[in-house]
Amino acid sequence: MLFFTQCFGAVLDLIHLRFQHYKAKRVFSAAGQLVCVVNPTHSLKYAPTRCAAAQTSVEQGVLPPCHHHEAVHDPQLVPCTCPLFSCPWEGHLEVVVSHLRQTHRINILQGAEIVFLATDMHLPAPTDWIIMHSCLGHQFLLVLRKQEKYEGHPQFFATMMLIGTPTQADNFTYRLELNRNQRRLKWEATPRSVLECVDSVISDGDCLVLNTSLAQLFSDNGSLAIGIAISTSKVHNAEAEM
Amino acid sequence: MLFFTQCFGAVLDLIHLRFQHYKAKRVFSAAGQLVCVVNPTHSLKYAPTRCAAAQTSVEQGVLPPCHHHEAVHDPQLVPCTCPLFSCPWEGHLEVVVSHLRQTHRINILQGAEIVFLATDMHLPAPTDWIIMHSCLGHQFLLVLRKQEKYEGHPQFFATMMLIGTPTQADNFTYRLELNRNQRRLKWEATPRSVLECVDSVISDGDCLVLNTSLAQLFSDNGSLAIGIAISTSKVHNAEAEM
Repeated sequence: MLFFTQCFGAVLDLIHLRFQHYKAKRVFSAAGQLVCVVNPTHSLKYAPTRCAAAQTSVEQGVLPPCHHHEAVHDPQLVPCTCPLFSCPWEGHLEVVVSHLRQTHRINILQGAEIVFLATDMHLPAPTDWIIMHSCLGHQFLLVLRKQEKYEGHPQFFATMMLIGTPTQADNFTYRLELNRNQRRLKWEATPRSVLECVDSVISDGDCLVLNTSLAQLFSDNGSLAIGIAISTSKVHNAEAEM
Repeated sequence: MLFFTQCFGAVLDLIHLRFQHYKAKRVFSAAGQLVCVVNPTHSLKYAPTRCAAAQTSVEQGVLPPCHHHEAVHDPQLVPCTCPLFSCPWEGHLEVVVSHLRQTHRINILQGAEIVFLATDMHLPAPTDWIIMHSCLGHQFLLVLRKQEKYEGHPQFFATMMLIGTPTQADNFTYRLELNRNQRRLKWEATPRSVLECVDSVISDGDCLVLNTSLAQLFSDNGSLAIGIAISTSKVHNAEAEM
């Protein structure tokens, strides 16, 4: 009986996945773009000050201390590299990718341009939608977060981070694009390093910010499609181009 | 004595204007773009429901009633076409441009691409920065508004409206672009008609929305430069292009 119940569950999951993928294809009819359906992760715990100390240290070029207890830390260990709200994990930069894949089951996608389809946008804040993106010899992390900076007014924050150092991150430009209902919104910036901590990027508001009404305008049946492109940055040209 | 005081004031104004223009040129070094310095208009009175009735009527294709008293209105008179917060003016669509020029001293600029330089972004909400833009045989209105939708949290809302009917507006696409500090934010949409009322566009959030931190990132010394471009719309192509 248990076997049949599980089989039925798996078939339902497959049907749901196929439906989500069909929705994504309908939104992005351009050939050759990889569409990835990203399900939300609801965070029960919220620790906004988790990375405050780390942030300061990274800016000064020092490995962040960021410990909340008296234990002596290995200076090679990098805390705060797991961008998930409630994860207390610390580890070397080199093993962040495997931590995210194994512990949080975050998918990794290949390709210069992908489409990130975040489902269930109606879920209450705080909620994260996360994917890893392998491109130009590096791994990037796209984080879409629904958060209430002002109580009762959830907003969506989207940013791309390099799983690497801030110096490496300076070599890239990422673009996030929303396109629906004859409206288009594009955000282009240099990715931040995961060492700089996603919480502080979002609290600084230095990312793509959407209020609920704008998110609804760009959503299709509760799913938000974000086109992602990464390129090597043409430093100092951006300002003059406009 | 009064004559000398006035002369001195005029000279100071000229120096200030020259300085603002220099700032704008520094931000937008691309040749051939017209930079227009736009000073703020602080609104003492705020009437958010002024156009609620008008909005519904426009959607239904009826001329909006929008009168708050018992007077009988000329059905040819269009209320709410003055986008300024506190202006109770009503008039024919054809005379909106002259009303805005004469009563509110709003400048009108020519050219397909212009740069709108809003000064004194620090001023408290509600504040408007407005300019008219003559392009492709029509007049458009760019409204940048600082408003507190959530008390204590001012946001900036930017939209472009056609001084014409909603059917005429459907033929155009406008683009607003911010570009500074290796960050770029682009908003593209179909302009709304001034008959639809700027207040409702902003309360719906169907425009470029900036929170204070993002506005500061894009500002230079308290001034925000917005690149504006208008084109005839390629209907139904936008969705597939991404």
